[in-house]
Amino acid sequence: MTDANAPVELLICTTCRAGQPTDVEGPRPGAQLFDALQGAELPANVTVTPVECFSNCDHGCSITLRGGDARWTYVYGNFTGPEDAELVQDGVTRYAATQDGLVPWRERSVHFRKNCIARIPPLEIPE
Amino acid sequence: MTDANAPVELLICTTCRAGQPTDVEGPRPGAQLFDALQGAELPANVTVTPVECFSNCDHGCSITLRGGDARWTYVYGNFTGPEDAELVQDGVTRYAATQDGLVPWRERSVHFRKNCIARIPPLEIPE
Repeated sequence: MTDANAPVELLICTTCRAGQPTDVEGPRPGAQLFDALQGAELPANVTVTPVECFSNCDHGCSITLRGGDARWTYVYGNFTGPEDAELVQDGVTRYAATQDGLVPWRERSVHFRKNCIARIPPLEIPE
Repeated sequence: MTDANAPVELLICTTCRAGQPTDVEGPRPGAQLFDALQGAELPANVTVTPVECFSNCDHGCSITLRGGDARWTYVYGNFTGPEDAELVQDGVTRYAATQDGLVPWRERSVHFRKNCIARIPPLEIPE
């Protein structure tokens, strides 16, 4: 059993280019999104971690939400950079409030409804 | 620490239609792929589990490979049904032989190279 306070990880791909040509130098949109979320107000049970490459490069920037043995893991894509920090903040806040990772459809932002790349069941797969 | 014998789960989406129109009745390609793998020869540390929906419906049939705290989790897509059982068998066998889930690129089949939907780091994220 777990509860809604079980720790949640927000993983952010910092190598995502969000469709930028590969010859553009400087900070990548994924790294900028990560930076923008450093200052964001998040639930106490959420940590934000940079990761290099989710192999979802065609639909980056990408994030993953996971946390505990009872929650589904979600990968979301098609963020564009730091301007999406608030959108990600909203999504992870709703996710962190659940016990199973399943945010009701009507409570999800349009971006989260339309840009789920994949979800993976918890270790104890529900019936 | 883990070793190459740590248990591996091969999760198969049994609701995937592989592009089939939604009015086609009968067993779905994902369910048929699951059935075809029931009789496959797999490493002793691999279990095969049916799952309903990875939210990767545009690129199904889909599978997920995971196992233990040290392996990356991978989602692969664009399988077409039971005729891909051997391809999946090959992929999970190679995955199960690793400690970290990272199968060298040159050892991956063309399908696995081209149809990785996403990967998620192990709980202990490598440097």
